[in-house]
This record gives sequence, structure tokens and C-alpha cells, in this order.
Amino acid sequence: MPSPQDSAITSSRSKITPERAQEFYEAVLTLLREGGYDALTMEGVAALSRCGKSTLYRQWGTKPQLVACALRGSKAATIADIDTGTLSGDLRQVAQALGADAGHDTPLMHAVSQAALQNPELMEALREALIVPAAAAFDAMLARGVERGEIAADNPAREFVAAQLMGAMRARPMLEGKNADAAYLTRFIESALFPALGLTKSP
Amino acid sequence: MPSPQDSAITSSRSKITPERAQEFYEAVLTLLREGGYDALTMEGVAALSRCGKSTLYRQWGTKPQLVACALRGSKAATIADIDTGTLSGDLRQVAQALGADAGHDTPLMHAVSQAALQNPELMEALREALIVPAAAAFDAMLARGVERGEIAADNPAREFVAAQLMGAMRARPMLEGKNADAAYLTRFIESALFPALGLTKSP
Repeated sequence: MPSPQDSAITSSRSKITPERAQEFYEAVLTLLREGGYDALTMEGVAALSRCGKSTLYRQWGTKPQLVACALRGSKAATIADIDTGTLSGDLRQVAQALGADAGHDTPLMHAVSQAALQNPELMEALREALIVPAAAAFDAMLARGVERGEIAADNPAREFVAAQLMGAMRARPMLEGKNADAAYLTRFIESALFPALGLTKSP
Repeated sequence: MPSPQDSAITSSRSKITPERAQEFYEAVLTLLREGGYDALTMEGVAALSRCGKSTLYRQWGTKPQLVACALRGSKAATIADIDTGTLSGDLRQVAQALGADAGHDTPLMHAVSQAALQNPELMEALREALIVPAAAAFDAMLARGVERGEIAADNPAREFVAAQLMGAMRARPMLEGKNADAAYLTRFIESALFPALGLTKSP
């Protein structure tokens, strides 16, 4: 299914269809899972998706940008799409969405974010494609909660919601050897986020 | 300064002094910072610390175990040493200890934990040397808080304290492009952990 991001890329830069872009993204993700970021080459992506390297460079510019777009394209649902009418409902849905991706996405994101720490260009591409939009979506979600009177505007825990969710996803595999699935993340938001934000479990 | 772990290794396995072990650990950390986990070799460590490879194998057994011990040895203070008499005081001290390491340790730990996701032997060595002891130290810290009547025994946020602190350290560099220093971690525990645990800011 074409996503808004794919359409934007398609219309602004070339005649690649969203479906074809998705094939490139799948090739990128396959190669990342197999060998990590450093081993991935534009040649490898081109070979796996049976196109010329120049197509990739024309469309995405650089390897960091291609990788960032592929990771964004692999998300089933974005945080920005969530709007249930209550903040606790929104956060529960975030737990479902992130937990659904956890099985295959966590090792992938670990691999890429580690590479990003040693590669400023990749870090910038990831921030632009994934992190800044997600953080803005959390801010908007919390602002709606403030508007509806569900949390105080000056609640100091607001600053840490995105970091806590991103952190819990990364920490559980290390601590417990298990992915942060939807059940874990739901327990996490209800036990740790809700009390800090002053929310109750009932929606 | 010799740490208890170094002494244990020294007495049980060989005649290497704690000071000499520390030199090996420094060599390991230098090589990890330069090239990451995969590029590190026992030969490289031996060359940099001017010893024979066999010394390393005799002392630490395997590369994963050497790396795990080097990371443990690099910690200025362990969580297990913290005992201020109050849970909020203990957690504040955790924020100081983790924040002090953040500048140089975060990229290093990212690099190694990423490698661990694709290397079960390294994951096991890290869990044994670092993660299980840290998680146990948090459990003991929280149990003391329960005994002193500072938090309820069935407080559901207890489960997530270690994951939240580990997570916040990893998430901030991605979200904000900054290390999780002591000021950030202190703000984090006071704004997010304390309310979930039912602790107040005053100790």
C-alpha cells in the first residue's frame, strides 16, 4: 500500500511507483538484517532489486537517505496517525503499534542506530525521516491531552515520554533477552507512564 | 585502582596484577572506540598492550568475555555500591554515576550491545558481567525502599526502573543528539521515575 511519504518521493523526484519503492526498501531491510549497515552497499541493493545503481542515487541521493526512507517505509503505522480521543487511549495504541514492530524491527533499529553514532550523515537522515516526526507526533498527542484537560500543561514528565518509550523498546532485549512486545509496552505505559503523567488506567 | 572484580580474576586464574588487567582493559576500550566490536581481535589487544595472545586467552578465555570484563572494569562506580539510606537518594546517585560515564561510554555500549544482538556468546558474557548484576542491584535498592516503607511492595512501576534508566541513556542521543548526562538523568528520575514510584522530590 502506498504511504504518503512514498507518494511524495514519487511525485517530486521521479517516475518510480510506490510499489517499486517498497521493493527497494525490502531489499535494503534484507541486506541490513543480513550484514548490518556498514556492509550494505548501493551496488548490493541494486543487484537485489534488479535495477541500476544510478536509479537509487537519483531517487534517494545517498545511502544514509535510502536507509532512513526504507526504515520509515517499513513502519506499519506511524505515531502521527494515532488519535483515539483520549491521551491514555493514544498511548495504548502507541504500545500496540510499537510492539507489533518489535519482533523484527528492534535488532534492525539497534544496528542502524549504532551505525548512526559513528556516522553523522546517517544520524541526520534518521533524525529527519524518523525521529523528529515521531517526537513531534508525541508532542502533538500530549498537547491534545493538555487541551482536553487530561494532563497539566507544566507536567514535567511530558519531556520524557518519547525517550521512555524508545528506551523501553531498546532496554528489554538487553535486560531480559526478550523483545518489547505489545503486552510489555502496555504494562509499561500503564505502570510507569500513566502515573507520572497523572493519568488513570481507565480511559 | 584495583576493583573487586579484578582481584577475583587475579587470584582465581593467574598472576596478572589488577593494574596490568586494567591496561588490557584500556587497550580493549581503545580498540572498541576505534573500530567497534567486530574489528577487535585478540591479536590487536595483545599488540597494543605488549603481551602474548596466549596471556589473554588464559586469563579471559574468549573475546566476548574479555570485552565484557573490560566494560565492567571501566565503570567508575557500580550500582551495587550505592546505599544512601533513602530510595530517592539512591536513585539520585544512580543518575550521577550513569551520567558521569555517559560522555564516553554511551557510544561504546551502543556499539557492543548492537554486536551482542547478533552474537549470543557476547550477549551472554555481557549479561553475566554487567546486566544481571546491575538489575540485581536495582532490585536490592527497591527492596530496601519497600522495607523502609518508602514504596509499596506491589508498586507496578518497580518492574521498569532498570529498563527506564538504561533506556533513557540510549534514547537521548537519538532524540536530541546529546548524551544523557547527570543533569538530564536527575531530571528524568525526579520527573518520571519518582511520581510512578510514589516518591517525592525531597529525600
